[in-house]
Amino acid sequence: MLRIVILGTGNLAKHLYDAFITTKDVDVLQVVGRNREDLQQFSEYATISNDFDAIAEADVYLVAVKDDAISEVSKYLSNKKGLVAHTSGAMCLNAIQTTNKGVFYPLQTFTKGIAVDFSNIPICIEAEEKDSLESLRTLATSISENVHHIDSDQRKKLHLAAVFVNNFTNYLYHVGEELCLEEGLSFELLKPLILETANKVQIMSPIEAQTGPARRNDLKSMGNHLELLNKEEHITLYKLLSQAIKQAHEEEL
Amino acid sequence: MLRIVILGTGNLAKHLYDAFITTKDVDVLQVVGRNREDLQQFSEYATISNDFDAIAEADVYLVAVKDDAISEVSKYLSNKKGLVAHTSGAMCLNAIQTTNKGVFYPLQTFTKGIAVDFSNIPICIEAEEKDSLESLRTLATSISENVHHIDSDQRKKLHLAAVFVNNFTNYLYHVGEELCLEEGLSFELLKPLILETANKVQIMSPIEAQTGPARRNDLKSMGNHLELLNKEEHITLYKLLSQAIKQAHEEEL
Ligand SMILES: NC(=O)c1ccc[n+]([C@@H]2O[C@H](COP(=O)([O-])OP(=O)(O)OC[C@H]3O[C@@H](n4cnc5c(N)ncnc54)[C@H](OP(=O)(O)O)[C@@H]3O)[C@@H](O)[C@H]2O)c1
Ligand SMILES: NC(=O)c1ccc[n+]([C@@H]2O[C@H](COP(=O)([O-])OP(=O)(O)OC[C@H]3O[C@@H](n4cnc5c(N)ncnc54)[C@H](OP(=O)(O)O)[C@@H]3O)[C@@H](O)[C@H]2O)c1
Repeated sequence: MLRIVILGTGNLAKHLYDAFITTKDVDVLQVVGRNREDLQQFSEYATISNDFDAIAEADVYLVAVKDDAISEVSKYLSNKKGLVAHTSGAMCLNAIQTTNKGVFYPLQTFTKGIAVDFSNIPICIEAEEKDSLESLRTLATSISENVHHIDSDQRKKLHLAAVFVNNFTNYLYHVGEELCLEEGLSFELLKPLILETANKVQIMSPIEAQTGPARRNDLKSMGNHLELLNKEEHITLYKLLSQAIKQAHEEEL
Repeated sequence: MLRIVILGTGNLAKHLYDAFITTKDVDVLQVVGRNREDLQQFSEYATISNDFDAIAEADVYLVAVKDDAISEVSKYLSNKKGLVAHTSGAMCLNAIQTTNKGVFYPLQTFTKGIAVDFSNIPICIEAEEKDSLESLRTLATSISENVHHIDSDQRKKLHLAAVFVNNFTNYLYHVGEELCLEEGLSFELLKPLILETANKVQIMSPIEAQTGPARRNDLKSMGNHLELLNKEEHITLYKLLSQAIKQAHEEEL
């Protein structure tokens, strides 16, 4: 049985807690955070505390706080024997200020109040010591079948890739919604297409899946589209992305 | 029973045929196309012909050919009494060269060899005559519960919105794959995130769903990301999309 303490009471802390309390091999001993109100939602299966000087003894400490606060919070754990791991895609292993350090990064977007199935979520683990890595692997495999040993450089690149496929993609959805609203149409109309576009690359590579006027270098259709756009930033984006798609496919040839 | 003829033997023609042959209210009488080999796949439940001067009498003709060929192909139907509808998002109703004209546009991306469930796909219909619109509605509701009367201007804007949420989004997936490959990582790692990003906007608006450094105006993280990018087009795209996200959220305030 692996005994863990979660530090932080935010979005990820809650999703990790919800996942770990359903496992047999992991015991969430305690959740520690500075926000008393948010702490309450962890009280059913763990002890809760807002005192960072009263952290329980555990095998693994998961520091699920804001990236900027990881170093600071990890300092409260400097006299602990257990492994201290942060959960960030963007931060180095060395952000942790203790000797026994690790990273436990679930590569997914979590939304407050929406339950997730962790079993398929990639969990990227990193540690200097072999034993620490094994602890993180035990922890990760208790909730996911998709566990990867990945170093800090790789993880940072992954986090950047995630910005493209999540944050930037979401912005394109927003543009889609704006264009619908310009015509008094509902964003509902685009939802099945959005899902199918995401489904398609589950089984074929994006370069194969690429369609549309830019892919075909169909100048007439692209000209028509540009005439329909009103906002300057939509026009710039349309030109840039069409050019990039054209170029990617010329490189393929 | 609505008797239809499908013209064209491409991607959409095949998906429409597969959908209509399972319905009780629609009879696919004939499929007409210039490609003898592609015609074979329609021979089980319809007669097939590559002679555009031997088109059967039907209630509705679906012209599912390349956008540029719609006008030309519709001319073969000028002496028919039935309704002639094209299936394109980008073309006007008037692309059809007969008196009784319509549009039957399924707003989805279709992939050769991958079966689709039409029941949730938005089908955008348009016609000048009330009776014609009703025929298209009967046709559309026989395969989908998501049928909309939409005019040519609206449909063109929708088609443009589809380019943003499908073609451009797919290109961002491609960038994600490129960034993974730079670190020897598999694109598999990004697939659950891609799905969840698409799932998220099924239940909340993209503007609410927006996360990431640009949303928070986190200059430090954005600076770190830019340092990790090697390709000029990735840098340009990163800056432009981050700027657009920042601006969209300033407008919200
Ligand atoms: N959300 C995701 O989708 C996701 C995915 C993968 C990884 N992560 C990583 O998970 C970590 C947490 O992210 P999150 O999304 O859960 O963030 P969040 O919902 O904003 O929660 C942040 C938590 O950090 C606490 N905190 C901030 N500054 C602190 C400080 N100086 N001392 C003590 N606690 C402090 C906050 O407490 P207050 O409420 O009192 O401010 C809150 O409990 C980050 O490293 C993030 O990169 C997040
Ligand atoms: N694919 C989609 O995801 C999708 C979604 C919604 C709407 N649509 C619309 O559906 C229509 C068909 O698209 P598609 O994807 O099925 O295209 P496709 O797979 O490329 O098939 C195009 C068809 O048009 C035929 N054709 C082209 N020029 C012709 C001509 N001059 N005379 C007779 N036939 C000709 C082709 O015959 P050959 O094989 O002999 O060239 C082929 O059968 C287009 O209007 C498109 O905008 C497509």
